[in-house]
Amino acid sequence: MNNQIETLLSHRSIRKFTKKKLSNEQIQTILQAASMASTSSYMMAYTIIGVTDEIKKEKLASISGQPYVKENGHLLIFCADLNRNTLFADQTDLEKMKVNLENTEHFLVATIDASLAAQNAAIAAEALGLGICYLGSIRNNIEEVDRLLNLPNYVIPLFGMAIGEPDYSPEKKPRLPIDAFYSENSYMDEKVTEKSLNDFDQTIASYYQSRSSNNRNDFWTDQMKRKLIKPNREDVGPYTKTKKLNKS
Amino acid sequence: MNNQIETLLSHRSIRKFTKKKLSNEQIQTILQAASMASTSSYMMAYTIIGVTDEIKKEKLASISGQPYVKENGHLLIFCADLNRNTLFADQTDLEKMKVNLENTEHFLVATIDASLAAQNAAIAAEALGLGICYLGSIRNNIEEVDRLLNLPNYVIPLFGMAIGEPDYSPEKKPRLPIDAFYSENSYMDEKVTEKSLNDFDQTIASYYQSRSSNNRNDFWTDQMKRKLIKPNREDVGPYTKTKKLNKS
Repeated sequence: MNNQIETLLSHRSIRKFTKKKLSNEQIQTILQAASMASTSSYMMAYTIIGVTDEIKKEKLASISGQPYVKENGHLLIFCADLNRNTLFADQTDLEKMKVNLENTEHFLVATIDASLAAQNAAIAAEALGLGICYLGSIRNNIEEVDRLLNLPNYVIPLFGMAIGEPDYSPEKKPRLPIDAFYSENSYMDEKVTEKSLNDFDQTIASYYQSRSSNNRNDFWTDQMKRKLIKPNREDVGPYTKTKKLNKS
Repeated sequence: MNNQIETLLSHRSIRKFTKKKLSNEQIQTILQAASMASTSSYMMAYTIIGVTDEIKKEKLASISGQPYVKENGHLLIFCADLNRNTLFADQTDLEKMKVNLENTEHFLVATIDASLAAQNAAIAAEALGLGICYLGSIRNNIEEVDRLLNLPNYVIPLFGMAIGEPDYSPEKKPRLPIDAFYSENSYMDEKVTEKSLNDFDQTIASYYQSRSSNNRNDFWTDQMKRKLIKPNREDVGPYTKTKKLNKS
């Protein structure tokens, strides 16, 4: 098999890294790869912040609740950013722009642009033999992350990415089978999905029972139920609006 | 250079394809690669719909205003999907889940999950020697796309992706230099960004003047200004709320 496809299919999130820092060349390659992702209407509506300050890393680790936010080869925070696109506009233009800057459409544009860039960064890191872990957990206290990074209006932190040399080799975690997330011409028939999810529950039960650490009995559908009945990060919505995003 | 990094750095959007359809094997490889992307809390909160029906493709092309939405090797529509995660919940659980399903946090989770999967699909396609183009333009009439694909509540179409054998070889389009989108420990100083954007305006002016087709005089900053002062897709926000997403 094509080694590029192999890299994509071999992904595992890495949650423990050696002490080795990324070289400047590795960081530049990862950032350049990120920047080559597709972008909506050429807006490139994202900013990436590398966190090297130990105090800030400590604070982010405490918000995330994960040690690997502090202990890694490099830490990136990906932000949705519509601010850069406004910097050369005068006051009159800026007033006119607000209808777009503040609506959900452009909140989506910036979120998608940042995510595509991030996934390119992830693939580049893995192609260099490094491991990565996305950190949605920075949204545990999104306002504090915002203050920590001095983000202006129209900019919000979406997620982090810890990158580094893997210090272990976890098993590959199963994914939904194709017939559970892909259909043709129309949204999938509910009965077909239910069948696929029942099969997937069996796959995931075996995976949890057989993996080398953190064994447990669990089904995917139960996990989703437990997760979704517990209110989570209800401040993210109101926060986006204080940043003048996602308002209409 | 590592050929995987080279693929990432060589990306161009392809807007004209040969008549060759993707093989079933190519489609399966692309979908499998998509599924291996990272996912927030294992939710895998996206659905991909392949559109092969000629009438539906025609309608999507008319919404997008782009001929390559109809003429390509395969057409995928990426949807943010929280519906699948609810299928095994009873009515009591479902009532409790609503606080999450309907909030901005989970709108972000599903949008980011779908985008990471999409970028893996894009890289896989390019690794197979194919070309791709993202189609944010399906949001020109997001409600009609929704009806066309019979999407239930908690599911919205985000963007399409046309994939196929490239029928031309466009120049690589410049991206923002790293110092315009990356800073350390804090959001970038506005003066630094303005300097970078002035430099980038010169790069992009040369690019537009020298490229082999569709020459023009333009700066990036002017392009952004023109784009953002014109109200665009103001229906996307209200539509997301009718789908019970992004409400709080």
